[in-house]
Amino acid sequence: MATFVQKFGGTSVGDPKRIARCAARVKQRRDEGHDIVVVVSAMGQTTDELIELAERVNDKAPRRELDMLMATGEQVSVALFSMALEKIGVPATSLTGGQAGVSTDGMFGRARVTRVSRERLDREIALRRVPVVCGFQGLSADGEVTTLGRGGSDTTAVALAAALQIAEHGGSCEIFTDVDGVYTADPRLVPSASKLARISYEEMLELALLGAQVMHPRAVLFGERYGVPIHVRHSQRTETGTLICRETPDMEDVMVVGAALKADLGRVSLRRIPNNPGMQGMLFEAVAKAGILVDDIVQTEFGEMASISFTVDHSELADVKIAASQVLDRVGTGELAIEIGLSKVSVVGTGMKSHVGVASRMFTALGNAGISIHNITTSEIKISCIVGKEHGQRALAIAHEAFGLDRLGAAQAAGTAG
Amino acid sequence: MATFVQKFGGTSVGDPKRIARCAARVKQRRDEGHDIVVVVSAMGQTTDELIELAERVNDKAPRRELDMLMATGEQVSVALFSMALEKIGVPATSLTGGQAGVSTDGMFGRARVTRVSRERLDREIALRRVPVVCGFQGLSADGEVTTLGRGGSDTTAVALAAALQIAEHGGSCEIFTDVDGVYTADPRLVPSASKLARISYEEMLELALLGAQVMHPRAVLFGERYGVPIHVRHSQRTETGTLICRETPDMEDVMVVGAALKADLGRVSLRRIPNNPGMQGMLFEAVAKAGILVDDIVQTEFGEMASISFTVDHSELADVKIAASQVLDRVGTGELAIEIGLSKVSVVGTGMKSHVGVASRMFTALGNAGISIHNITTSEIKISCIVGKEHGQRALAIAHEAFGLDRLGAAQAAGTAG
Repeated sequence: MATFVQKFGGTSVGDPKRIARCAARVKQRRDEGHDIVVVVSAMGQTTDELIELAERVNDKAPRRELDMLMATGEQVSVALFSMALEKIGVPATSLTGGQAGVSTDGMFGRARVTRVSRERLDREIALRRVPVVCGFQGLSADGEVTTLGRGGSDTTAVALAAALQIAEHGGSCEIFTDVDGVYTADPRLVPSASKLARISYEEMLELALLGAQVMHPRAVLFGERYGVPIHVRHSQRTETGTLICRETPDMEDVMVVGAALKADLGRVSLRRIPNNPGMQGMLFEAVAKAGILVDDIVQTEFGEMASISFTVDHSELADVKIAASQVLDRVGTGELAIEIGLSKVSVVGTGMKSHVGVASRMFTALGNAGISIHNITTSEIKISCIVGKEHGQRALAIAHEAFGLDRLGAAQAAGTAG
Repeated sequence: MATFVQKFGGTSVGDPKRIARCAARVKQRRDEGHDIVVVVSAMGQTTDELIELAERVNDKAPRRELDMLMATGEQVSVALFSMALEKIGVPATSLTGGQAGVSTDGMFGRARVTRVSRERLDREIALRRVPVVCGFQGLSADGEVTTLGRGGSDTTAVALAAALQIAEHGGSCEIFTDVDGVYTADPRLVPSASKLARISYEEMLELALLGAQVMHPRAVLFGERYGVPIHVRHSQRTETGTLICRETPDMEDVMVVGAALKADLGRVSLRRIPNNPGMQGMLFEAVAKAGILVDDIVQTEFGEMASISFTVDHSELADVKIAASQVLDRVGTGELAIEIGLSKVSVVGTGMKSHVGVASRMFTALGNAGISIHNITTSEIKISCIVGKEHGQRALAIAHEAFGLDRLGAAQAAGTAG
C-alpha cells in the first residue's frame, strides 16, 4: 500500500461534472488499496473573477488583502471536491492550506513554503479519509493567509508528497492536467514531438525555465530537493504520463531529451563600459528594480573596457531601455544598443555531461539549414542559440530532428533509451 | 473615545459601489476619533449561489463541507471591504472568524459562540487599524471552520462588542441594515406603525420570536447577557435608529411597545390521550426529530386523560400529521384533529409586569371589532391571541391602535414615554 498525492488543476475542476470525474479518479486509486491526498486549485476562471472584483474596489489593493481574497477560490474547490467524494462513498475532509499544515514565510502573493507538518494529514489518513487540500496557499508564522504565487498548487502537491515521504512505499505525486505528459518539444510548434516516459528533475527544470509550461520551476525544485517522483498525466485519460524523477545512470545515454523555443526576444547591449567590479551589480540591480526578467547574460572584456549583453522578452524592452540608459548616465561613458526580433532555441539533456559533440551537432544542423547563430549560451545540461525570430520555429524543428527527439518517447517506452 | 462595532449585512455590501458607501460610513465614525471594528456578511446572493453549487455536486453534502464552502462568502466580503477602506486612507485588516478570536462549539451549520478572545482585535486597534471581521463564522476547538446559522453575523457583531466591553466607554454595536430601526409593528402590515427610539432586550427577543425579522433572537440574547447596547439603523441613511438596551425603570411606564402577526398557522390537537409523565416528551421528541418548529403549546387535563394542542406554520402541517399519527399509534389511543387557517396576534411590553388590564384591553378591542379569539397564550411580557386567518391583519391593526402604538415612537423621541 502506497500513498499518492493527486493534484487537479483549475480546468479539471471547472464545474460540478468535471469535479465528479476527478473524484471518480481518486476513488479508483483508493480502491486499489492506496492512501490518497488530494490537492485542488481554484475552479476555472475563479481567480480571474476575484482579481477583477478586487480591481473594481481598489486597483492598488494591499497584497495581504488580495491573498485573503484569492484563498477563497481554493477553499470553494476543496469543499465541493470533498462533497463529490462523499457522494460516491469516499470519506473526505477538506482542509485549507493552514489546516493541512502548510507553513509559509510572510511574502504575500509569492510566499514560499517553509515547513509542512504532517500531523493532520496522518490523522485523516489513519481514519481512512481522503484529505482534500487547498493548493496555492498556506499560513504564515503570524497566522496570516498567504498565497504561493504562480505554480503554487503544484508546489503544494509536491511539498505534501515530500512531507509524507511517499517515495518510500512506491507512491508518487500525480499532477493531473490538460496535457498528457511532458513532450520533447511543444507539439503545437513541432508536430512530431514525442511524449517522454521520464525526465530528470534537472532537465525538467531547465525546460520549465526555457518556457515549457507543464510544471512550474519551483515545484520541480521542491521535487528534486526531496526526491519526490512526479507523474504528469492527463486528467481525463488513463494512459501513463511522464515521470519526473532523479537521474539514473542509464538516462545519461540520451544526450538530449527536449528542445524549447523562446520567441520574441530582444538583446540589450551596453558597450565600452568600465570593466570594474560592481558594474554588473549596478546594472542588474537597476534592471531588477524595474521588474524586468532577464534571460541570458553574456559579458566580454577588452582590457579596461567591457561589453555586457542580455536578452529580455520583447514586452520588457521599453522598461529596460529606460533602466539601462540611467545606468549609463551614472557611469558617464559607454553606449547602448538594442536589437529586436530574436528567438532562442535550446536543447536540454543530462547526457550532455558525458557526451561530446552535442554543441557541434546542433550548430551543424542549424548551419546546414542556412540559419545563422547570433549568440550561444550553455550550461552543463543545456545549449541555447539566439537566432533571428523569422527562423525560430524552423530552428526548433531542426534541433528536434537533429537529436532524434521524435523517436525518443517511443524508445523510452520500449526501454531502448536511457 | 469609544469603540464601535459596525455590522453591515449582505445587501449593504452587495457590490463594489455599496461596499464603498459602507466604507465611507466607517471612515466617518473613525474620523470622530473612535475605534472601529467592522463585521461583514457575505455579499448579496453569494450564500444562495454557493448552496446551489453544493447541491449540484451532492444534495446530501456533509455539514462540515457546507461550512467550509459557506465561510468563503464572508471571506470575500472582508477582503473587499478592507481594500475599500484602504482606498480611502483607512488602514484595515481583514480577519476570518477564527483569526478574530471567535471560538465555537463543533455543531456545523449552527455553531454557538463559546468564547471570543480579543487579543488580535486589540492588537489591530492599538495600531489604529480597523479589523474587518467575517460574520457568521468561527473556529471550533479542533480548528474546524464552523458557521453560526441564521442571524450569525449579528451574533458575531454582538459577541465581539461584548468581548471588547464597548459599553464601558460609551460605544455601541451598530447593526446597519435595510430598515431604519425597529417598528411597533411591521409597517407593510400596519402603515401607521412608528419607529421605536428604544426597546429592551427582553421585548426585542419576544418580538423576534414572534416573527419580527429585524434582529435574530440569538444575537439579542447575547446582547442581553453581556449588556451590549445594540443600535439598529439604516445603512444608507444617517438618522438614529432604534437602541436595544437594558430595561430602565421608566420603560415600565409603557405597557406595550410592539405588536406582531404570525399568519398561516395551523393547530394540531391530540385529544383523549393518557395524562401520564413522558407523554409530552414522546410527542415533542417525535415532532422535533421531524424537524418541525412548534409555536405555542396548550395542554388541558381531564382526570386520567389529557389533550395537547400546539400551533405550527402551515408549511409544517404535512410533516406534523405523519409524526403525530405515529405517536398516537404507539400510544394506542387518542385522536388527532388539525385546524388550518389561523393567525396569531401578539402584543409585547415589559410594562405588562406592573400594569393590570393589558389583557382585557386587547380582548375588548378585538371583541368590539367582532373578531373571536380561538386561543390565548401569555408570558410575563406578552399576550398572544389565535384568531381566524381572515381576521389576522385587521386584528394586528386593532391591537396596535388599542395601545396607542402609532404615537409611541414620537413620544419616546420626545421623552414623554418611558
